Amino acid sequence: MAQQITLYLAQICPAAHRVEIVLAEANVTNHTRYEIEIGPNKPKWFTEKVNPAGLVPAITYGGPKVSPNQPSPDSIKIGESLIISEFIADLYPACNLIPSDPVHRAKMRQFMDAVMTKYVAAYAGVLIHGKPFEELYTALEWLQNMLPSAENTAGFAVGSGEEFTLADVAVATLFARMLIWMKMDLGAFEEGEGRKAYAYLHDSGKFVRLLKQFEAVKARESWKKTYDEDMITEAYKIQLAAFRAGAA
Amino acid sequence: MAQQITLYLAQICPAAHRVEIVLAEANVTNHTRYEIEIGPNKPKWFTEKVNPAGLVPAITYGGPKVSPNQPSPDSIKIGESLIISEFIADLYPACNLIPSDPVHRAKMRQFMDAVMTKYVAAYAGVLIHGKPFEELYTALEWLQNMLPSAENTAGFAVGSGEEFTLADVAVATLFARMLIWMKMDLGAFEEGEGRKAYAYLHDSGKFVRLLKQFEAVKARESWKKTYDEDMITEAYKIQLAAFRAGAA
Repeated sequence: MAQQITLYLAQICPAAHRVEIVLAEANVTNHTRYEIEIGPNKPKWFTEKVNPAGLVPAITYGGPKVSPNQPSPDSIKIGESLIISEFIADLYPACNLIPSDPVHRAKMRQFMDAVMTKYVAAYAGVLIHGKPFEELYTALEWLQNMLPSAENTAGFAVGSGEEFTLADVAVATLFARMLIWMKMDLGAFEEGEGRKAYAYLHDSGKFVRLLKQFEAVKARESWKKTYDEDMITEAYKIQLAAFRAGAA
Repeated sequence: MAQQITLYLAQICPAAHRVEIVLAEANVTNHTRYEIEIGPNKPKWFTEKVNPAGLVPAITYGGPKVSPNQPSPDSIKIGESLIISEFIADLYPACNLIPSDPVHRAKMRQFMDAVMTKYVAAYAGVLIHGKPFEELYTALEWLQNMLPSAENTAGFAVGSGEEFTLADVAVATLFARMLIWMKMDLGAFEEGEGRKAYAYLHDSGKFVRLLKQFEAVKARESWKKTYDEDMITEAYKIQLAAFRAGAA
């Protein structure tokens, strides 16, 4: 009875990872995963027939059973990780990823918006453009200030910190990758700065609440099922070395 | 029983106008409107106590009855026009501004996302930075391609074009102001270019579907109640002349 879902993704991509977590939370297991090679070898049919913006993740929903690389004009096409995430959470409301309380829902959306504007910009600024880490710390503090502050919360972003929602999914996939490139010390910053930032994040005592949120997300089955740190680390060795060279 | 709502706005602002339309659609009439002077004279308490991002629109919801310029720490604070709009639509589900069908909801969000990324950027590019009108036409075509295309639709963005949703609200307040500054020929472009664009938009036959959507929004009571073209025109005479000077 359920319609087919085909997810086009790149496994290293934090945005695509969000959708994988949501599918896991919704107990969807019969979807099709199809890896898209991003970059110059991206298949033309993907932009033409799936996502005119040319970005992963994207999904097709419904329509006839077809091969993923021959998408049907009769399926629904949806792009943008948070829109896809919300769509799947809407299809499977039992996953409880969207709070039923309107105030909590608005808080969730505000947090997601801050992730997509402030955090993404600061993250890319440091990693790709070699901007100062201070901008990243400021964005992280901004996010942290939006979290329920009580120390005895479970760690999540909404309500009294006990509701796991799309807000937690939105930030965690980026946060995890940030920790990797900091620890690996790879990006468009000077050698050593990444490791320093990693230590500062953990030892300064300034990000305790945010780290607690991340721990809470990592403890979920949906995270464990969808996150492969070794694979991302290996991919980053190649991909991120290019940023360092570009910055020199 | 309903909680108080205080809307901080600037009436000329297309983002704040969205919230006013949603309040009208929800038949909320007992809210407090408070005009914030944007620019250098913006009151300090607004950023400190209402919206740390310093932007209008913003709302306070609930908490004790207070004077708008003395906001209570006990009210909920929400910023970002589309988040506020969705919050109010959630509080008053009878207004039917959010489709109940998950696919339609996703389409609504995709359209809103395109407005907030592609259209806003192209709009500001032309108006404030004097970039080519072609970028604006491209963004408008992108939006138009997301609309249900059948010519006999009512004109709205979602479903078969008969469902008035937040997607229509999101684009219309910008579209209306764009037509004003084109017609007035005021912005960071060369004299005459605005009038030319206004004519092109109406006479080229390329934007028929988009114009039909706008007409459908304008026909609603919620639009008539909240849109004061003369006021905006007068304000733009002062505000937009500065862009022309800046571009020279």
